[in-house]
Amino acid sequence: MRTINLDHVAASPVLPEVVDAMTLYLAEKYGNPSSIHSLGEEAEEALNEAREKVAALIGASPTEIVFTSCGTESNNFALKGVAHANRARGNHVITSGVEHFSIMHAVKALETQGVEVTRLPTDRHGIVDPADVERAVTQRTVLISVMHGNNEIGTIEPIEEIGKIARAHKVPFHSDAVATAGVIPVDVQALHVDLLSLAADSFYGPKGAGALYIRKGVRIAPLLDGGIQENGLRAGTENVPGIVGMGIAAGIALRELPSRMAHARRLRDRLIAELPKAVEEVEIVGHPTRRLPNNVSLTVKYVEGESMLLFLDMEGVKIASGSACISRSLKVSHVMLCMGIDAATAQGSLLITLGRDNTDRDIDDFLRILPPIVQRLRDMSPLYKKTGKTRAVS
Amino acid sequence: MRTINLDHVAASPVLPEVVDAMTLYLAEKYGNPSSIHSLGEEAEEALNEAREKVAALIGASPTEIVFTSCGTESNNFALKGVAHANRARGNHVITSGVEHFSIMHAVKALETQGVEVTRLPTDRHGIVDPADVERAVTQRTVLISVMHGNNEIGTIEPIEEIGKIARAHKVPFHSDAVATAGVIPVDVQALHVDLLSLAADSFYGPKGAGALYIRKGVRIAPLLDGGIQENGLRAGTENVPGIVGMGIAAGIALRELPSRMAHARRLRDRLIAELPKAVEEVEIVGHPTRRLPNNVSLTVKYVEGESMLLFLDMEGVKIASGSACISRSLKVSHVMLCMGIDAATAQGSLLITLGRDNTDRDIDDFLRILPPIVQRLRDMSPLYKKTGKTRAVS
Repeated sequence: MRTINLDHVAASPVLPEVVDAMTLYLAEKYGNPSSIHSLGEEAEEALNEAREKVAALIGASPTEIVFTSCGTESNNFALKGVAHANRARGNHVITSGVEHFSIMHAVKALETQGVEVTRLPTDRHGIVDPADVERAVTQRTVLISVMHGNNEIGTIEPIEEIGKIARAHKVPFHSDAVATAGVIPVDVQALHVDLLSLAADSFYGPKGAGALYIRKGVRIAPLLDGGIQENGLRAGTENVPGIVGMGIAAGIALRELPSRMAHARRLRDRLIAELPKAVEEVEIVGHPTRRLPNNVSLTVKYVEGESMLLFLDMEGVKIASGSACISRSLKVSHVMLCMGIDAATAQGSLLITLGRDNTDRDIDDFLRILPPIVQRLRDMSPLYKKTGKTRAVS
Repeated sequence: MRTINLDHVAASPVLPEVVDAMTLYLAEKYGNPSSIHSLGEEAEEALNEAREKVAALIGASPTEIVFTSCGTESNNFALKGVAHANRARGNHVITSGVEHFSIMHAVKALETQGVEVTRLPTDRHGIVDPADVERAVTQRTVLISVMHGNNEIGTIEPIEEIGKIARAHKVPFHSDAVATAGVIPVDVQALHVDLLSLAADSFYGPKGAGALYIRKGVRIAPLLDGGIQENGLRAGTENVPGIVGMGIAAGIALRELPSRMAHARRLRDRLIAELPKAVEEVEIVGHPTRRLPNNVSLTVKYVEGESMLLFLDMEGVKIASGSACISRSLKVSHVMLCMGIDAATAQGSLLITLGRDNTDRDIDDFLRILPPIVQRLRDMSPLYKKTGKTRAVS
């Protein structure tokens, strides 16, 4: 059976060039960047090269990049690090109700330590209103954190406008760009962000490698204390093979960004146009235009997302029903609830994330495989039966 | 020129079996363990298998292993996590003056948050006296953290006895075993530890993969908040290739431990016996018998360690002068100062860490290469000239 990966946000194969470079740094160039001898220098040069490539991907200076182990670490580091380092200035953080779990729960952890939090609502497309940000700012605000692109619903937030407001109030502004960096153009200057999180596995780099952009001058405390690695901001022996892989992947992503986007957007738009015709009572979730090129988020009424994805899996289609980070907890998406989608409808969510390996045949097959699965599940659903729309399975 | 790696504690080549397994999980089995479909299940099974192997290496149950990104993260997680989770119980932490930087600086960070810290001294061999631990325990003590084996001086601490004391007082006991797990036998039951840090690159696994053993029932708060990975204790997409690599390396280490130890010990004992004969005023640092089999730590009087290692590097010998984690900061080792070694002597430290690839020829060559380098440096040293021992370079 052919595998159709429509779950690229959870996992994508690492690029062959990345695997080759990582293998070299695992087996042969195995030095520790902190060592003063030549093996260490070789490793340090590799880190510097990767740092330049990652910085170039987001329009930053290499000295503003701190490597981490993943997007979640970058988000925890940004929130906790800025809140702790600025405690004398204030204890108020502004964020939104549609953030990734690594923001949402890091903020909750800060709350238990006495930090006050404002969680902004969104409109029905998941968009945060910059005017709400402006109204929430106080003299005690030490950080604003609003994500760039939403991993579940694909909505792209008005970061540039929020950034302008943050700057006008001299409040540090962080954006979780794990869903966008390496996927769409990200420029830390144009976005007016002071901190930005990214992860290598969002752009065909390895798991276990992330980064936090920290604008020069931003006060931040380390999350990992210890040695003098990463300019004293992130201790621990650097994951050299992972970081090298992230650098290679960043370089290729920057070059291929236009073609990857055009490819994904074309397949995405086919799905958005054809899915509602193939299956009744499908709603596309998220913003009609401010949407990641690789994202199709939808709800299918009277059906559970989990059930759909298990049946789709049996047909070779790999797909998600919301964020992978909580998929096993079987909770309803806080993002959809924040947007005003009712819990019953949100239960029937499907999340399609496209990648460079997807083809029109993948879309054709998916559009052929999905409808009978939905019908079969609906025929078993008491809620659907009440609608009187049931039909016999042929 | 032949490369002689005498700096295995900083960096070792990853085993070929580990590289092969990692490549497979980078390029082909690229699933996300949190995904419910088959790609995710495959990745989750790989994590489970790695967890079993890492648990077996230290006599733990797989459910007591939390994967992290490195030893430094494990140490930060243990210290900050236990201190935060037990704040209602107390705010006193006991540690030693010879700990790794990731303990020392994590403890300093806790101090800025109001935690009281007792730092125990050691004897001249770097050994912590268990009676000192017992005397330091108060009703407010929430954690004792003493390392298992010292990465700089090779001294093995009396963890079993300290563990018994901790247990008698019902205080959680953490040990940093980054220098010992996979190097000498480590059994969390025999050692009476409640938390234990380890890192894959200590036993020919990859950088970027570590673990924290957390005994069932120990109260600990996450360091990385977010998704439900690692039983809710360490959020973030798991570094599946790195963790798989750590598992393979742990399995091989457990099997090869006796032969690796015997090999290293034989070469170590040659160096300990022959170095003082080859170079005048060399002192072996650390304990004469309670020493890691792969460690030779020494001081060479009237010479700077940095200079020696740069000259040795030019001859192909890769060696360190203390912990790699601060090597570039050019500070005198806090470990040696804690043991009562004066700063001038500690400046002349050399740290040799042996590995499975070292041979008798490596030792022969090193014993031949080192003396003329020392003599050359001494001849340039004003301090040495004052001793009147100077001789003309031939």
